Amino acid sequence: MSETGWIDKLAKDVTGKLHTCNKCELRRTANNTEYFLPSRKAVHDVLDNLMAILFPGCHGHGTALEDASEKCILKELKSTIAVLQEQAEMAFRYQCEIDECNDCNDCVDKAQSAAQFLLETLPDTQDMLQDDITAAYEGDPAAKSNMEVVMSYPAIQAISTYRIAHTLYKQDVPLIPRIMTELAHSRTGIDIHPGAEIDKHFFIDHGTGVVIGETTTIGKNVKIYQGVTLGALSFPVDEDGNPVKGVKRHPDVRDNVTIYAEATILGGKTVIGEGSEIGGNVWLTKSVPPNSKVYNVQPDPKILSHS
Amino acid sequence: MSETGWIDKLAKDVTGKLHTCNKCELRRTANNTEYFLPSRKAVHDVLDNLMAILFPGCHGHGTALEDASEKCILKELKSTIAVLQEQAEMAFRYQCEIDECNDCNDCVDKAQSAAQFLLETLPDTQDMLQDDITAAYEGDPAAKSNMEVVMSYPAIQAISTYRIAHTLYKQDVPLIPRIMTELAHSRTGIDIHPGAEIDKHFFIDHGTGVVIGETTTIGKNVKIYQGVTLGALSFPVDEDGNPVKGVKRHPDVRDNVTIYAEATILGGKTVIGEGSEIGGNVWLTKSVPPNSKVYNVQPDPKILSHS
Amino acid sequence: MSETGWIDKLAKDVTGKLHTCNKCELRRTANNTEYFLPSRKAVHDVLDNLMAILFPGCHGHGTALEDASEKCILKELKSTIAVLQEQAEMAFRYQCEIDECNDCNDCVDKAQSAAQFLLETLPDTQDMLQDDITAAYEGDPAAKSNMEVVMSYPAIQAISTYRIAHTLYKQDVPLIPRIMTELAHSRTGIDIHPGAEIDKHFFIDHGTGVVIGETTTIGKNVKIYQGVTLGALSFPVDEDGNPVKGVKRHPDVRDNVTIYAEATILGGKTVIGEGSEIGGNVWLTKSVPPNSKVYNVQPDPKILSHS
Repeated sequence: MSETGWIDKLAKDVTGKLHTCNKCELRRTANNTEYFLPSRKAVHDVLDNLMAILFPGCHGHGTALEDASEKCILKELKSTIAVLQEQAEMAFRYQCEIDECNDCNDCVDKAQSAAQFLLETLPDTQDMLQDDITAAYEGDPAAKSNMEVVMSYPAIQAISTYRIAHTLYKQDVPLIPRIMTELAHSRTGIDIHPGAEIDKHFFIDHGTGVVIGETTTIGKNVKIYQGVTLGALSFPVDEDGNPVKGVKRHPDVRDNVTIYAEATILGGKTVIGEGSEIGGNVWLTKSVPPNSKVYNVQPDPKILSHS
Repeated sequence: MSETGWIDKLAKDVTGKLHTCNKCELRRTANNTEYFLPSRKAVHDVLDNLMAILFPGCHGHGTALEDASEKCILKELKSTIAVLQEQAEMAFRYQCEIDECNDCNDCVDKAQSAAQFLLETLPDTQDMLQDDITAAYEGDPAAKSNMEVVMSYPAIQAISTYRIAHTLYKQDVPLIPRIMTELAHSRTGIDIHPGAEIDKHFFIDHGTGVVIGETTTIGKNVKIYQGVTLGALSFPVDEDGNPVKGVKRHPDVRDNVTIYAEATILGGKTVIGEGSEIGGNVWLTKSVPPNSKVYNVQPDPKILSHS
Repeated sequence: MSETGWIDKLAKDVTGKLHTCNKCELRRTANNTEYFLPSRKAVHDVLDNLMAILFPGCHGHGTALEDASEKCILKELKSTIAVLQEQAEMAFRYQCEIDECNDCNDCVDKAQSAAQFLLETLPDTQDMLQDDITAAYEGDPAAKSNMEVVMSYPAIQAISTYRIAHTLYKQDVPLIPRIMTELAHSRTGIDIHPGAEIDKHFFIDHGTGVVIGETTTIGKNVKIYQGVTLGALSFPVDEDGNPVKGVKRHPDVRDNVTIYAEATILGGKTVIGEGSEIGGNVWLTKSVPPNSKVYNVQPDPKILSHS
C-alpha cells in the first residue's frame, strides 16, 4: 500500500480554505454561549422510536423495543419525547437567530409546547394509523394480512411519518418536520410535504414518485397510486424574482377520490370533487365536479409487426 | 436547556391510552406460552447475509464476510439459515393464529422445509444471478465491468432480493418475502412483488419507479427501463366491496422483449408476444403478437420562441 | 423452537457448490500476494465523511463530526482521504487485472493523484455546493431557509455526491464513482451518472425518478423537476451485438433552462438552447433553439359525470 504522508500538509492547507462551519455564525448566540443545530441523526432516531412505539413489536428501523409491554413503551416514550423537546428547542433557536429576534426566552416554551402536543395527541395519531392500515388492506388485492401491511408497506412508513411531522409543523417547529418527511421520502420514494392536510383512511399503493405539495388538502378515504403528483402550476415571484412563500399552490382532493398511477393534478384552485376517479396519466389543471370520471383518451400506440 | 419533568406524568397517562401491542392478542398462544412476531430487522439481516454469501467480497449492506474463503462462507451460511428458519417459524405461527387453525405443530416442519429449500437451491440462484449480471453488462453501454454492475447497479440488488424472496413465497412463507422485496424497493425504487415469475437473463436499467405485480410472468432475456409498470387493470370485489385476493391480474411478458421507460402494461389477459419492443410511455391494455414494435405516436410538442 | 442440526451437513454440501468468490481469480496477483476489492462500505463511509466535512454541523448520514472546529475537520479530512487513497488503489488494481496490464506499479501513483486532486479541489467543490443550496432556496417556494435545504433536500444529497464522484471519474478511478452515485440514487431516487458534466447553480425539485445519463452536459442555472430523463435514444452495437461503450448518447442542456416534471429528452445530438423552458411530460428527441418554450398539447381528458 502507498504511503500517506503527503496528506498531512495538504489537508492542513485545504482545511484553512474550507468554510469550517456552514452558517457557523449561527452557532454562537450574542452573549457567546454556544448552542447547536438540531442533529439529523437525532431527529431520525426520534422518528424511528415513535414508529416503534406506535407499532410495538412490528416496526422500528434498526430500533426494537425490548418487549412490547406497557412498562417498556413508557420508558421509550419518555426518553424519545425528551430528545424531541431538546431538538425542537435547537430548531426554534436557529430560526430565532435568522429572524434576528435576539431574545429567545420563549424558544424553550415553544419547544415544550410542541413536544407536549405531539405526546398528548399520540393515541389519536395511532388510531388514525390503524385506520390507514385498514385502508391499505382493503385497497390492495395483493395484501395478505394487516400485519403484512404494517411490516412491509411503504405507504405505512410514509403516512406515519407524515402524520407525526404534520403535528410538529402545525406547532411551527422549524427544520424537524421536513427532516422527518424527507427521511420517509428517501426510504419510500413518496414525497409528502409536512404542511399538507390529509384526512383519515388514506392509502398509497406502490408509491414511488408520489409528490404531495405543501398546501394540498386530501379528504377522507382517498386512494392514490405510484407517480401521482399533486403539485403547483406555477408560482408568483417577488420583485427580485424570488418565489413568494406561503401561497396556496396545490390542489384540494375531496372525500372518496381515487387517483390512478402517474396522474398529474396541478394548481391551488383545482378541486377534485367528492367521489371522483382520475385515470392513469391524466394531466389536470382545472376542477372537476363530484363523482366525475376523468380518463385520458389514451393515444393509440402504433403496432408494427417485424416478424 | 429546558427541564423535562413534565414528561413523566403525561407519558404515563398517554401510554395507558396507546395500544400497547398492535394485534397483541396474537402474541400469546391459547396455552399462554409466549411467542413473537418475525422481526423486520432480523429478516433484513438474513437478506443482507445471503447477498454477502452470493457475492462474496463484493456485496453486503453493512455486512461483510471477514474473508471470502469457503470456511468463512460456510460459517455465515449456517448461522443465516438458522435465523431464517426461526423467523419463518414465527411467520407460520402468526398466519396460523389469524387462520385460527389452533394446532400449529406443523409450523415447525413448514419452516424447516422452507429454509431447507432455500439452502438447497442457493447454487442455482447464484447461477441465475451471474446470468443477470451478464445481461446488465451487455445491456448498458455505461457499464464498465461486471464488477461495477455487481457493486453498484440497483437492478442486481432488486433482482437478487426478488429471487431469494420468490423462493420463500413458493414455500408459502408468510410476511417474510414481502418484507424482503420492500427492503429492495426502499433501496432501489424497484417494486417487484415476490409472487411474480421472472425467468433468467433479466435486466432493469436505472429502475426507479418500476412496478411488477404479483401475478406477472416474464420470460427469458427481457430488458425493462425505469418507470415501467406491469400492473392490474382493475380487480374484482366481493359482496362487501373488498378486493378478491389471488386472481390473475397482471400481464405475461414473453422471451426477448424490451420495454422502454415509463411504459404501462396492464391486465391479467395482456400478453406481450416474444421478441416484441414496447416504446417509451406506451399505454397498453391488450395483447400484441410476437415480434411487434409498439410505439406511441408521440404528441408533437408545441415549440414557441420567446427570444 | 425447531432444532437446526440438519443445517450443518447440508450447508457444507451447498458451500462446495457455491462460487466461493465471484471473480475470485482477481483477488490474487500473479506473484500470489493477496489484495482486495474496494469495499462498498468503505466507499460509502468516505462519501458520508466528505459530506460531513463539506456541511459541518449539519450533515453526515450516521456520521457526525464531534464538533465543527477546524481541528476536528482536519482530523476527519486526513483519515478520510487516506481511506479514499487506499480504496482507489484497490480499484485501479482491479481494473489493471481485467485489462491484463500485469504491471501495476502505477496503480499506487494513480490512486495518490486522484485522492490529491479531490482534496485540492474540495474548497471549490464546497463553493459550488453553497451555490447549489442558494439555487434550491430561490427555486422552491416551500423552502423555509437555507438550513432546511441543506439538512433535508434530496437534491443537495444527490448533487453533492455527484460533484464528489465526478471529480474521481475525471481521474479515471474505476468502480468508486458509480458506487457513490448509486448510493445517492438509492437515498434520493435521483440517478446522476458520475460522467455527466453539470455546471453551477443546479437544482432538482423533489427528484424521484430523475435520470441523467453519462454523456449529458448541463449549463449554469438549470432547474429540473421529478421524473425528468436526460437519456439515450438508442445506442450502436458491435458485431457481437454488444453496446459500444463511450459514445456520446445523451443531450446537452444549455444555461438557464427549466425542465418540468416527467419530461423526457433523448439523444446525443439533442441540444436544448439557452433560456428554454420544457413543459411537463414533453417527449423531445430533437434540438430546440435558445429561448424556446416547449409544451405538450396536453390531451384533453374525457370527463364523465356518474352522479
